[in-house]
Amino acid sequence: MQTIHGGDVYNNQIDIDFSVSVNPLGTPQNVREAISSAVENMNRYPDYHNTEVLKALSKMHDIPEECILCGNGSSELFMAICHAFSPRFAYLAAPSFYGYIHALNASKTEIIYSNMLQNDDGFDLDCDLPNLLKNADMIILGNPNNPTGKLFDGKLLVKIADECEANGTIFVLDECFIDFCEGNPSLIDYTKKYKNLIIVCSFTKNYAIPGVRIGYLICGDKEKILSIKEQIPEWNVSAFSSKAAAACCEDKTHLEETVKFVKKEREKLRESLEKNGVKVYESDANFMLIKTDENLGDELLKKHVLIRDCSNFTGLSKGYYRIAVKSEEENAVLIKYVKEILK
Amino acid sequence: MQTIHGGDVYNNQIDIDFSVSVNPLGTPQNVREAISSAVENMNRYPDYHNTEVLKALSKMHDIPEECILCGNGSSELFMAICHAFSPRFAYLAAPSFYGYIHALNASKTEIIYSNMLQNDDGFDLDCDLPNLLKNADMIILGNPNNPTGKLFDGKLLVKIADECEANGTIFVLDECFIDFCEGNPSLIDYTKKYKNLIIVCSFTKNYAIPGVRIGYLICGDKEKILSIKEQIPEWNVSAFSSKAAAACCEDKTHLEETVKFVKKEREKLRESLEKNGVKVYESDANFMLIKTDENLGDELLKKHVLIRDCSNFTGLSKGYYRIAVKSEEENAVLIKYVKEILK
Repeated sequence: MQTIHGGDVYNNQIDIDFSVSVNPLGTPQNVREAISSAVENMNRYPDYHNTEVLKALSKMHDIPEECILCGNGSSELFMAICHAFSPRFAYLAAPSFYGYIHALNASKTEIIYSNMLQNDDGFDLDCDLPNLLKNADMIILGNPNNPTGKLFDGKLLVKIADECEANGTIFVLDECFIDFCEGNPSLIDYTKKYKNLIIVCSFTKNYAIPGVRIGYLICGDKEKILSIKEQIPEWNVSAFSSKAAAACCEDKTHLEETVKFVKKEREKLRESLEKNGVKVYESDANFMLIKTDENLGDELLKKHVLIRDCSNFTGLSKGYYRIAVKSEEENAVLIKYVKEILK
Repeated sequence: MQTIHGGDVYNNQIDIDFSVSVNPLGTPQNVREAISSAVENMNRYPDYHNTEVLKALSKMHDIPEECILCGNGSSELFMAICHAFSPRFAYLAAPSFYGYIHALNASKTEIIYSNMLQNDDGFDLDCDLPNLLKNADMIILGNPNNPTGKLFDGKLLVKIADECEANGTIFVLDECFIDFCEGNPSLIDYTKKYKNLIIVCSFTKNYAIPGVRIGYLICGDKEKILSIKEQIPEWNVSAFSSKAAAACCEDKTHLEETVKFVKKEREKLRESLEKNGVKVYESDANFMLIKTDENLGDELLKKHVLIRDCSNFTGLSKGYYRIAVKSEEENAVLIKYVKEILK
């Protein structure tokens, strides 16, 4: 069954799921404990104002609380942004995350695709994109991009931010996977300069808690924050999400270890896949885009291993798959099966 | 501090909170256990299709799964409904729940208020309301109504449903508190007949789990369900909400006991309040609207007891408060304090 997202372990018998890309080091103990302790808070309404979480996020990012907004996962925030600004036209890079399309469909926005340029190593943004933004009310980009896992050129992103500021275009930058990348490439500090820049973050992937639902956004323009807040349902952040977020803000060592681990395992995976004739595109994240002429997805599914078939991404076609970087043991199983299938 | 909702125990030092109206019998053991067990699922994405929850709800209500949609609390569903149908004009009864206004503001809908008729016992819907609906794209009513706690006349509701069907008006009926009322007055079965009727339910109040966030809606028109679903963020139902909902569907005894308990305690509260010169309006639910010339809210706050100041409800004014029916012991404390203040 073709799905628009990975992770459908509910309708398949799956032993190892490489279709979702969460932290292979799992959830730190303090976050696990915070989530367990939130069971005690099930009987009272969450804090309407998210005071505790906003305080922790503000401290962690050195951004004023009034410039931060929490969501029931980043997916809620994308939709709220789209409703808040009701863009007529929006640019998306192709291929990119389906969630942007879902949110833009909700606000009845016409989507204009900018096809990424494919070279031997990977997929890059069209350098001409900044010049096209005069026609657009909004642009949504993921950095690193999903499903490619590649970081965009920082200078190009700043050029896009410049153009957006000049044209009144809202620039939504999805940094939900940025904690997996080396060298702290986040543009959060740029929200102090660019008032049209909205950065969306999440604890889902970096702390491996997709079942909990917690995301947040940062924007330097408080008026925009208020407009988006009008599109957020009341009490959207559960007792569990609230406790989880506060605990995630306390732990940074986890992310440092994650970056090292992911880099090491990603390169091992790449090497092995390439040895077996699979085309592997450049990635800075905890997942990678690959291409093969073999029916790899279905063959792996027979072995109860799920990878993400990317043939239904706008800009991709049959043969593209996204593979998460998982634990050493799990990655070894994948490599073993790939060898068996492609032998 | 004047707030638009009750339950702000985060910015006040509160020992007993009568401002939120959740089940005084608390959460049944099976639901508590289900929520605790969901901690194990924090590391995987929730089921995108909510298969388990929809199956349980379908069985409980004898409604096809395709006619049910889950939300991160009913608040998410109200907003999604408003965005799905983008009504130009919508009717609300005054006074009613602020959440309807929040949702209609999100869809930039003009709100027309139908002032409820106040007689000696309570607040009733204007009988002329069905005739006014020709002008409206939507009407949202709570049954029982919040903050009055009173059930509307069932025949009048059916008349409204008839008019809505004739005029193409969407009829949103909020039954989030209906499980506290005697005699099973739900109109869920009517969704089989009226395709414009959307019933919104929640496990927040009846199972006392406001920290968990789980609501659902029922509509007989599958096309409408799909339209609303387009306005729902992906993975909106957390691992905790999902497990909680399935467990709530299993337990009905809890609700039977609740109805008996609430009725007994509500009548005791009413009697005591009236003895102390407080005007108490008729209620069928686990909360009641009262009126007094004394500054009861502030005086109780000094004793660390919170009640809901209703002066900022459209249709009400200074002196109106909403009080939840809580445990026997807590209600006794309230009565003791009310006596001291009003002596």
